[in-house]
Amino acid sequence: MRTLEVDLGDRSYPIYIGGDLLEQAGAYFERHELTKKSPVLIVTDTNVAPLHLRKVEVSLQSSGYRTVHHIVEAGEPSKSLAVFEEVMTTAIESGLDRKSSVVALGGGVVGDLAGFVAASYMRGVNFIQMPTTILAHDSSVGGKVAVNHRLAKNMIGAFYQPEMVLYDVSSLQTLPNREVRAGLSEMVKHGLIWDQQFTDWCGDNAGKLLSLDPETLEYGLIQGCGVKAKVVAADEREQGLRAILNLGHTLGHAIEATGGYGEYLHGEAISIGMAAAALIAVHRGKEAALYERTVELLQGFGLPTAMPVHLDEDQLISAMMHDKKFTENKIVFVLPVQIGKVEIVSDVTLDEVRRVIAELKGERQNV
Amino acid sequence: MRTLEVDLGDRSYPIYIGGDLLEQAGAYFERHELTKKSPVLIVTDTNVAPLHLRKVEVSLQSSGYRTVHHIVEAGEPSKSLAVFEEVMTTAIESGLDRKSSVVALGGGVVGDLAGFVAASYMRGVNFIQMPTTILAHDSSVGGKVAVNHRLAKNMIGAFYQPEMVLYDVSSLQTLPNREVRAGLSEMVKHGLIWDQQFTDWCGDNAGKLLSLDPETLEYGLIQGCGVKAKVVAADEREQGLRAILNLGHTLGHAIEATGGYGEYLHGEAISIGMAAAALIAVHRGKEAALYERTVELLQGFGLPTAMPVHLDEDQLISAMMHDKKFTENKIVFVLPVQIGKVEIVSDVTLDEVRRVIAELKGERQNV
Repeated sequence: MRTLEVDLGDRSYPIYIGGDLLEQAGAYFERHELTKKSPVLIVTDTNVAPLHLRKVEVSLQSSGYRTVHHIVEAGEPSKSLAVFEEVMTTAIESGLDRKSSVVALGGGVVGDLAGFVAASYMRGVNFIQMPTTILAHDSSVGGKVAVNHRLAKNMIGAFYQPEMVLYDVSSLQTLPNREVRAGLSEMVKHGLIWDQQFTDWCGDNAGKLLSLDPETLEYGLIQGCGVKAKVVAADEREQGLRAILNLGHTLGHAIEATGGYGEYLHGEAISIGMAAAALIAVHRGKEAALYERTVELLQGFGLPTAMPVHLDEDQLISAMMHDKKFTENKIVFVLPVQIGKVEIVSDVTLDEVRRVIAELKGERQNV
Repeated sequence: MRTLEVDLGDRSYPIYIGGDLLEQAGAYFERHELTKKSPVLIVTDTNVAPLHLRKVEVSLQSSGYRTVHHIVEAGEPSKSLAVFEEVMTTAIESGLDRKSSVVALGGGVVGDLAGFVAASYMRGVNFIQMPTTILAHDSSVGGKVAVNHRLAKNMIGAFYQPEMVLYDVSSLQTLPNREVRAGLSEMVKHGLIWDQQFTDWCGDNAGKLLSLDPETLEYGLIQGCGVKAKVVAADEREQGLRAILNLGHTLGHAIEATGGYGEYLHGEAISIGMAAAALIAVHRGKEAALYERTVELLQGFGLPTAMPVHLDEDQLISAMMHDKKFTENKIVFVLPVQIGKVEIVSDVTLDEVRRVIAELKGERQNV
């Protein structure tokens, strides 16, 4: 088991990463001196509950905690105010009080939803993250919690830091291959924005990571979470630096939106977005090797790097404009400077974006 | 104009109290360097909008701010998640961004609702309070914002501090007499828990306060807000000391609940609650003068201090138990030690509460 401390002053918290941690949930609750007098609410979804809920409940109950659970439908639609209110109802009816904890057992959707419940119930109770996806190594660090409004994603939320993150690598063994690949996309991103050595390590260990070798995965998650934690510690409320975490996301979000959320997993879409950002950088004078190395890395994880030909260029542009706003036909973009380093530029033009979309449609569609 | 600084580290903010401040809203926005590029959302209610909305809009627009407004029905039912979502819809449709401000123009309901919108929209935007009631001198300090759940009040919310409070004493001139009296009840409470000298001043100036003499009101509000601000600064997230603000509230809430919210205004109910707390203290050994002085003060404001005879004792007790939980028939209570000083005791028994309910039913019903 490894521990990563996220340094946020009096809101600092540890991320515990290791095998079979869910079975030790009770011991970790005791280590954090969480009271046994107040009930614990575990929020999870229909995919995760059959796999992991029982062992968390058994562990907490063995340590003397009283637990209740609320299971939501797996998938993005559960990140709604309606479901949020249902979870609140469970919390009130179960007698949760100010000393209670709300546990997010699952991936990003459950983390965002349960996190906003924890942030808002009685104006804030303890929040414990138990991520069960690789992608959640990203979302479980940083304290961004939210639900969606029907008009836009993540519009209603808070910055709310957990008491601890219990990241059980064993729970990842049941993930479908495609989700593993897509989750590792964010890990590679953390290398690309911050740490050349870690990026190279990712490239060298793609096979072991894809086959979920526990030791390798544990190291990769610690490093990935570590990059995220450093960036968040420097900019908790997203005033500046934190924007570098959006490498690949500007075009990535547009691909997700244009594909109707479902055709592309988040990690796949940002993989294409990272390839596009590297290509824009090359057009602006960086060496071609920067793009080639980025593509090689991502393809090593079986991730897509070409633009799907059926996605309409105008629709992609329009989705980007909806997401970010072009000012006088210019948009803010995170671009690589070299492997392991990025910059935020605010003058990428519509024409530059159109050019890479077209060029990436001509690339080999490797997925 | 007087300024009171609420000292909360990097969340500190000023309360400006004076005449005709709503007409100067634009200048205060400029003083706080709020951007003119992002729209401002003013949340108000059907009572306040006809009286004050126009002048706030005119002032902001004259300074170059783009404003939109959302008017909710006056009254507690607007503190719901459904109305919260409607305000969010207005915010999104009006293009509010992260640099936008949400203004609460109104009393406690509007402040709580708009405050939770400001806390949650895009994970938090600027929040500006413009209280238009005397009671709001209490709720506008402290950062407690919330909406109600159908099962319990104030269950969903946040601690979220405003950027500034613009307290226009002129806007209070249109308040009904009964609301003035009830609002002044919290002002007297701030004296009773913290400051003997201010309490005496309240007693000596009851007439001027009730007739809304601007100078007197300004001084009283500054002092009342000042007590609240000191207590909140010492205990922002309600871990301990802040509980002293609940003087009169334990029984007061029960009176409100038993009367069906509407028969008694909040300030009237806590006035009876403060009399009850003083009487319990006397039963526990304090001099009778403590109770007599408390009653004299409150009656000087035309506030009730006797227990309404038609309120059922068992129902009152049951409402208290719902609100606070008796542990082994004992309840936490804020009791006066002397005028201007209180203590938190955790061993008030059911019998003691029943005794004062009975005794206060026998007192002169002065309202």
